[in-house]
Parts: sequence; C-alpha cells; structure tokens
Amino acid sequence: MPSHRLPPSLEPNALSQEVDRFRREGLPFIDLTATNPTRCGFAYPEAEILAALAAPGTLAYHPDPRGSRTAREAVAAWHGQGLDPEDLVLAASTSEAYGWLFKLLCDPGDEVLVPSPSYPLFHWLATLEGVEARPVPALAFGRWQVDFQALEAAAGPRTRAVVVVHPNNPTGQFLTTSEWEGLLAFCAARGLALLVDEVFVDYALEPPADRLGSALGTPAPPCPVFVLSGLSKIAALPQIKLGWVAARGAGARALLEPLTFLADQYLSVSASAQAAAADLLRLAPGIQAGLKARLRRNLAALDAALAGRPALTRAPVEGGWAAVLRIPALEPGEACALRLLREAGVLVHPGHFFDIPGDGHLVVSLLPEPFPEGIERAAALLDARAR
Amino acid sequence: MPSHRLPPSLEPNALSQEVDRFRREGLPFIDLTATNPTRCGFAYPEAEILAALAAPGTLAYHPDPRGSRTAREAVAAWHGQGLDPEDLVLAASTSEAYGWLFKLLCDPGDEVLVPSPSYPLFHWLATLEGVEARPVPALAFGRWQVDFQALEAAAGPRTRAVVVVHPNNPTGQFLTTSEWEGLLAFCAARGLALLVDEVFVDYALEPPADRLGSALGTPAPPCPVFVLSGLSKIAALPQIKLGWVAARGAGARALLEPLTFLADQYLSVSASAQAAAADLLRLAPGIQAGLKARLRRNLAALDAALAGRPALTRAPVEGGWAAVLRIPALEPGEACALRLLREAGVLVHPGHFFDIPGDGHLVVSLLPEPFPEGIERAAALLDARAR
Ligand SMILES: Cc1ncc(COP(=O)(O)O)c(C=O)c1O
Ligand SMILES: Cc1ncc(COP(=O)(O)O)c(C=O)c1O
Repeated sequence: MPSHRLPPSLEPNALSQEVDRFRREGLPFIDLTATNPTRCGFAYPEAEILAALAAPGTLAYHPDPRGSRTAREAVAAWHGQGLDPEDLVLAASTSEAYGWLFKLLCDPGDEVLVPSPSYPLFHWLATLEGVEARPVPALAFGRWQVDFQALEAAAGPRTRAVVVVHPNNPTGQFLTTSEWEGLLAFCAARGLALLVDEVFVDYALEPPADRLGSALGTPAPPCPVFVLSGLSKIAALPQIKLGWVAARGAGARALLEPLTFLADQYLSVSASAQAAAADLLRLAPGIQAGLKARLRRNLAALDAALAGRPALTRAPVEGGWAAVLRIPALEPGEACALRLLREAGVLVHPGHFFDIPGDGHLVVSLLPEPFPEGIERAAALLDARAR
Repeated sequence: MPSHRLPPSLEPNALSQEVDRFRREGLPFIDLTATNPTRCGFAYPEAEILAALAAPGTLAYHPDPRGSRTAREAVAAWHGQGLDPEDLVLAASTSEAYGWLFKLLCDPGDEVLVPSPSYPLFHWLATLEGVEARPVPALAFGRWQVDFQALEAAAGPRTRAVVVVHPNNPTGQFLTTSEWEGLLAFCAARGLALLVDEVFVDYALEPPADRLGSALGTPAPPCPVFVLSGLSKIAALPQIKLGWVAARGAGARALLEPLTFLADQYLSVSASAQAAAADLLRLAPGIQAGLKARLRRNLAALDAALAGRPALTRAPVEGGWAAVLRIPALEPGEACALRLLREAGVLVHPGHFFDIPGDGHLVVSLLPEPFPEGIERAAALLDARAR
C-alpha cells in the first residue's frame, strides 16, 4: 500500500530489537553509538542559547525563500572565504537540503553517486525522491581514498551528481587536494554537479598533510559545487533545525534560482532559528572546543584500550566524531555487536551498518562521556575471544 | 540543467514585476493579497510566545520521528474527538506534510486529484515529488461544490489520493456532510487515500447549515484519511514551523509506520517548536479571536463597498481568510489587477491565480488592516468602469 519509495520491510534488525529489550527491562549498557551531542554531558551556554531563540525577531515573519538576509550574512561570515550571502539557501537541516538538491538535479529515475562506506542516510534520501543512489566503493589501503576507477564504472548516462563527505562519516577521511582536483575534472567532463557535505569539517583529529581545507576556499570550480553544512554539527545543536547549501562554480548561479523556487514551496526554517543564527554561530567555537577536548580524550582512551592487544587496531581518525576498529572477523558483525551488548554491556555499530564490507570492523562514536570504560570493556572481550 | 520537476520559466509575471517596481520606487499601495498574519497589525501575546519558545525543553534533543510525545499530546488535545497522539506525525509545515504524503502514497508518475479552484501550491508540491496533480474542477452554481462526475472523469489507474481543502482557499466553501459521504465512498471504492486540509477549519464566517465539522469527528472512515493542519493558521504563527498529519480510517494504521520512517529521514521540527506547542495552542483561541473580529469587520466593509454597485458581487465567504469578488469580465484578469494597482493603488489577485476560470473574479484577503479603504478604492474604480 505505501509506494515503492519506502523500504519493503520496517522490521527492526536483531541489534535494535535487543537494544529495545535492554531499555524496556531497564538493563544498563554503555552506548558507544551515541551521536546526539545534546545528550553527551557537554556544558552548553544554556542561557545564551535560550535568549538567542527568544529574540524578538521571531515575532514578525518576513519570509525570504533563501532564508533571512541576516541569517545568511551570519552563515557567510562563519565560512569566510568571500562567500556571498546571495549564494546561500537555508534549510531546516542538511537532510532536507539533500532532498532539495536531488529534486533540483534529478528527474525520477536519474542517479547520484554516493560514497561507500558512509552515512546510511543517502540511500533513503535519494530513494524517497525517486532517485537511485549508486554507491562508489572507496579504496581502503591504510586510509580510505576516492577510487576514480570505481567512480568511472558507476557513472552512467542518467548520473547527475556526485556526493562526497569531507571528512567522511564514520570513516573520517578528509578529501586530499589531489582527490579534489580529480573530482572536479570528473564532474566537469561529464556535466555533473558535485555535492560536498562539510558538516564535520571543523573536527580534525589526525588530518593528513595534503587535506583539502574547505571546498569553499578553492579556486572557482569548473562545475556546480554545492557545499552542505548546518548547526547540527558546527554548533552541536541538532535541535535548532538550521542547515544550508552554498552554491558556487560554473553553472551554479543558474541553479540557484530554481533552488530558491524549491525552498519557497516549503519555507521550512523557523523564524526563531533564523533570528538566532548569528548568536548561535558566535557560541559555536566555544561549544566546539568542548567537543574537541572530548574527542581527543576518547581517542586517547581508545588507544589505551588497544595497547597491548595486537589483534585489535583502528583506522586513522582524520576527522569527525567516530572511529573505526579493525577486529578479527570471527563471526558476523551483528552477532559480534550482540555479544558485546549482552556480555560486555556495550553498544557498538557493526561496520556493515555503514556499508563497510566484511565482518572485521566495528564503529564507535567518540562523543560519549563513559567512552573510556565502554571501550575498555569492549576491547577486553574482543581481545579474549581473539586469543 | 535543473530537472523537469522545476518550472520551465521562473520569469515573474507582469503583476509581480509591477509590485516589485512599486516597492523599489517606494510607491504606496494597499496590499489586499496580504495573508501573513504576523504583518497585519494584530496584537499577539508577544511575551508569552517568546517565553514558550525559550522553554528549557529546547536544550536537550530527544528526537522522536513522529514528534515529541508532549507536543503530540497537545495537538491531540487541541483537536479533541478522541484523537490518539500515536496517530499524529508532526512536520515543519503542512507543505512538508503534503510532500511526505505524496511520497508515501505515490510512486513517480502516479497521480493525485486536487481541487480547482484552490491554493496554487498543490501543483508544485506534487510535481516536485514526480507526482501529477490532476485538477478536479468544482461545480460553481452559487457556491462551489464537489463535482463527482469530474472526480470520476479525473481518476485513472495511477490515481492514489484525493486532496480536499475544508474550507477551501480562497473560495471558502466547507465540505457538506453529503459531500463527505460521497468522497469516502469514492475513495473506498477505488482504494484511494483522502487528504483533508483543515488549516482554516476554525475560521467559519458564513458556514452552510449542512457543513461537515472536522474530518476528525466523523465515524470511522472506510478508507485512509489524513487530516492536515498546523500553527500557521490555527495560531496565526506561520513562523514557528509546526504542522501535522493525523491519520485515521481503514488502512491508515498500516501507513503510519512508513510515514514515521519518512519523517525520521528529515526530523525537521525544531525542539523549540515542539517544546512550545502546548503553550502556543493555549494562546491560539485568543489569537484567533483577534483574527475573527478582523475578518468580520472586513467582510462588512466589503459589503459596504459593494452596496449600490450591482455590477459587483461576492461569493459567500463560508470560511477562511479570503473573499472572491465577481466583476464584469471587461479585460483579462491580470490587466484588471494591474489597473487596480496603478490607478487605485490597490493590489488584488486575479481569479486565475487560483485557477478560477475566466476573467470575472478577483480574490482579496480579509486580513489586512487597511482593507476598508483598499476595497472601497477598488470597488469605486471597478464600478466606474462597469457603467
Ligand atoms: C555526513 C552527515 N551529513 C548530514 C547529516 C545530517 O545532518 P542534519 O541534522 O543537518 O540533517 C549527518 C548526521 O549525522 C551526517 O553524518
Ligand atoms: C489551504 C492551505 N494549506 C496549506 C497551507 C500551507 O501552510 P503551512 O504554512 O503550514 O505550510 C496554506 C497556506 O496558505 C493553505 O492556504
């Protein structure tokens, strides 16, 4: 009865069912999949946030399809790089912005190329627009890299855009400057748009020397480039519901007008988020500092837990909020995650949740406060089984 | 370069261009198309609204794909009729909720039947989802009525849903109880869902004796019924960005789960709108009282302007925020609107903007504060030309 855009089954998987049972029965566990920053024990400047949201600007509604000029000026100032507020379109979230861009660029049946491994949202955001998301597997030698052969192989006559995540979630790799040049050449040669998700770009932990800074700071691209970001990660305030798209590069201006038309049909950003944008972005560096300290502390705790356990290693955490563990592939990923929950009281994601092939990877969030205890318990159990 | 979902031309029409020129050159005019209630001089309980938005609930984000349980309880209590909060899904706006419902019910290429005349948004909301919106012209004898023959003629094998607006915008007619029965029978017989937009249902001015109350108060429908509403009109607070869908009737429960999945991909309602919902709904009756007094005053002013000018009449204003004038069709609707702007300094919408056939109708908003002066100036000019 629902359309074919929806998943054929909505049965929760065995791991979700077990988590539900733990919650229902009040069984304690340490959640190393937690990525909601508002529930990880950070000290937010609460009074300032609430005051920003209750700015009197909230009372009179002056709908501008791209978002209020003052909010766009604040976002442009945040990014710097000479970004013009006229090249910005605000949305309630980057998820919504993805939907708009897929609508803008793709007729039903068209395709976009999405990174693999990555955040599982893209598949559904595309499918819900009647668009096919074709995964482009990354090369995975030491660090993950753009595989240009795989990109060539995945592109077809109905391909309209390439999506990259910089740095990627959860694998953490930044684009390098040479990958960036390669992506621009690829997209320009085929008339594709390039979508660059930079929600985590401020969170560098072990960045490579040749990383790309921001796609907004590069020389004028030869293809349309849409950079996505928002307060969810920049200010660790996902509940405000403010994201945006910055358009640049050859052909981008001509797409801004229809993108504005699209935004005008929904007008989904609250006046209070728009009125608060400048204040919240002023608070963002302080909030980020708290998160970065936690990320570094938890990465050190991860290394302490892995030390002396040679069967367990981790991928470099170039950026973002997650780490990828490499473990002996003794059982299917979901069985391993279930075992960790039941026997160690620790919840982790199996790698396949993010499209990491095989059973040799687990993904943990570096945000949770009880991370050190959780990761030690998980590592001890995994290590004991590996012997 | 943009997809075929977007309009082929985004050139503003001659009337919009002239309005832009008036604004650029600072030429004064009375805007009888204004429907943004926050800019029509109403006395809002400002302190209470701001306090509600800054509720501390805003600081911790507990994402629930249907919207927070407390917000859904507040919405359910507002509607009464035994509505179960579990049958509600919150969205940032009814526009977004339409998009979700079209995705839920329609594959690309499927069709929905939409009322004509009506609000021009439906065409684009459907087209952007790859869905065809087929207009079903209403019978227009005295009042507009559902034309069941036109409905039969418009329905085809790919039709998935019927949209009705209760009361319609801008033509104001409520559904009657017999139209409701007919619509249910029609949808049940063909396996269609019925979408009922009740954003204006509280604003009755000249309701017919046999009007349907709310679709939420009817006996269990034999087909899935989705009722849409939101704070935009209920509390005259479009800038908060809180709308919703209530699902009921045979087959609705089975669609709620995939609808929840859909909402989960976007999570677009701000925590502050959700935390404020109960307070804002408590303020809604007082806000509505101010609007209703204005609507009655302006309807009386309209009648005073039409009195003694027999060439000019109006349709009954059963409900909503707009009135439809009938005028001699001496020139194309847009030319008439341009003349009123240039010669009387009054902005109105030609009827064709809302799909009213021919050139004999103009649409005015009953919200603006300077309505009495504006309508008198417009009527005087139209009357002079009709002699
Ligand atoms: C890479 C990436 N992009 C986008 C999002 C969604 O962000 P938003 O809350 O703005 O929709 C996420 C959320 O985790 C993400 O990981
Ligand atoms: C009939 C009707 N439905 C829906 C809407 C949109 O409401 P929202 O602001 O919740 O998107 C409008 C706006 O005028 C309307 O007239």
